[in-house]
Amino acid sequence: MSEPHPHFERIAIIGVGLIGGSIALAAKARGLTSHVIGHGRSADRLQLAQKLGIIDSYATHLSLIKNADLIVVCTPVDRIAVDVMMLLALTNNESTLITDVGSVKDNIVREVQNIADHERYIGSHPLAGSHHTGFEYADVNLFENRVCVLTPTEVNSSTHIETIRGFWSALGMNVRSMTSVDHDQTLSRTSHIPHLVAAATALLVDETAIDLASSGYRDTTRVAVGDPDLWTAIFNENASHLMDSTDQLIKTLTQFKKAISNKDSATLKKMLEQAQRLRKLYHEETPQS
Amino acid sequence: MSEPHPHFERIAIIGVGLIGGSIALAAKARGLTSHVIGHGRSADRLQLAQKLGIIDSYATHLSLIKNADLIVVCTPVDRIAVDVMMLLALTNNESTLITDVGSVKDNIVREVQNIADHERYIGSHPLAGSHHTGFEYADVNLFENRVCVLTPTEVNSSTHIETIRGFWSALGMNVRSMTSVDHDQTLSRTSHIPHLVAAATALLVDETAIDLASSGYRDTTRVAVGDPDLWTAIFNENASHLMDSTDQLIKTLTQFKKAISNKDSATLKKMLEQAQRLRKLYHEETPQS
Repeated sequence: MSEPHPHFERIAIIGVGLIGGSIALAAKARGLTSHVIGHGRSADRLQLAQKLGIIDSYATHLSLIKNADLIVVCTPVDRIAVDVMMLLALTNNESTLITDVGSVKDNIVREVQNIADHERYIGSHPLAGSHHTGFEYADVNLFENRVCVLTPTEVNSSTHIETIRGFWSALGMNVRSMTSVDHDQTLSRTSHIPHLVAAATALLVDETAIDLASSGYRDTTRVAVGDPDLWTAIFNENASHLMDSTDQLIKTLTQFKKAISNKDSATLKKMLEQAQRLRKLYHEETPQS
Repeated sequence: MSEPHPHFERIAIIGVGLIGGSIALAAKARGLTSHVIGHGRSADRLQLAQKLGIIDSYATHLSLIKNADLIVVCTPVDRIAVDVMMLLALTNNESTLITDVGSVKDNIVREVQNIADHERYIGSHPLAGSHHTGFEYADVNLFENRVCVLTPTEVNSSTHIETIRGFWSALGMNVRSMTSVDHDQTLSRTSHIPHLVAAATALLVDETAIDLASSGYRDTTRVAVGDPDLWTAIFNENASHLMDSTDQLIKTLTQFKKAISNKDSATLKKMLEQAQRLRKLYHEETPQS
């Protein structure tokens, strides 16, 4: 990776949590900027983040985010579109690029198209995270070897796309581009269905049965402990693709049920073998985001 | 736990794999017997198990299993009923107790009732295991603090039940009794559905999408790498309860879909909160079998 890295005079992080904090740390550690300004609702929290060396300055109003070359919006997924639109309106500076880290992209990309100079916005989804929340868990290596998806549109110049690509690449990520629709369709299966299914499976096992839970239960339901607000927002943002994928999942479960009902061991085994084969693809190439 | 432990002159293990080998090691380490005889199809493998000190002697024919006080059948779940019935017929010794480790119980319990002196058989399901197979991975502490379910019937004497209970208890297990039907109904939700769902979710993500797989995918699909033969047998053995539980799961997924479709965030969040609450019950009391 000997591509030249972009350099930014000032990077603004909107929403200084685990992801935002990790971006701030990683961007400075890798020499992409010498100044990160953090934005959030709580001055106390931002002051603490500054004291911990995660950000260099802070603001509690979006209108105070001036002179940043790059703004990374790390707010909850159902807030991002509004924040991006406000920032596009507030920063009428040709050289201010805006991106975000939302895990659902199409709603955001489509809403932002209502704003005049939306060519300064390019959607990003860095597939990295943790079950922790808060900048106290910020990790300078969070993005290392993970995948980042960009969802540029035809209005984005190749120069802007290369700058955003270079940014994530400099944080250690493998960057790829796809349409926001393809992204959301794929993520509905690779991320949102796994969460939905974990929750649905957890709902089948109540107090009376929990001490007979197997290691299969432990793994399959693990992410059901995730934040209900966060996941309600993600499910709503990706509603149409998630409903399609849920139908596909129900269809697969119904095929399993039919094979079991028919005592059709050959089909049952073939389906389990195919699932095993697909699951084994995971380790070789994957970011474990 | 100051109950007196039972003692056995000879314990026979039918099927010396990970579970059978671990039982052999644990029974000797805890002074429950000084002689374990292993049974299997391959003399070479049994010889190796003997050389490794896991068993003391071996036989490749069931008819050679004589003079054991306790026989533990650890063969694949769809073989167990036949093995137990043959062993009941072959050991017409009042003092030979037979149990098994099958993860589905009702088929076995009902089939065994066709044999004359089936009061010598009591079904067991030690909820312990590993993704490894083979006695090379036998672990003397595999059963420590895990749950073991017994499924006695009205023909079993309390003396026999106490002996089998004492055996598993001496291996460090928390033993509880329930009917074979209740066992299978519960396990369909706490073990078999988690596996079915993991496989169904893995089937949604092919080569083209795998590098966008999230940590949710990683956890939720982890057990889909399990042995297809083993799980085909388990699903078949527990067919009727598993079909009921699959219906229940599909119903829950449909409720999720309806809430997403209706943009009913309140219901969606309530369901995710309930799933989170139930999943959090797991750590406190559970064996992580």
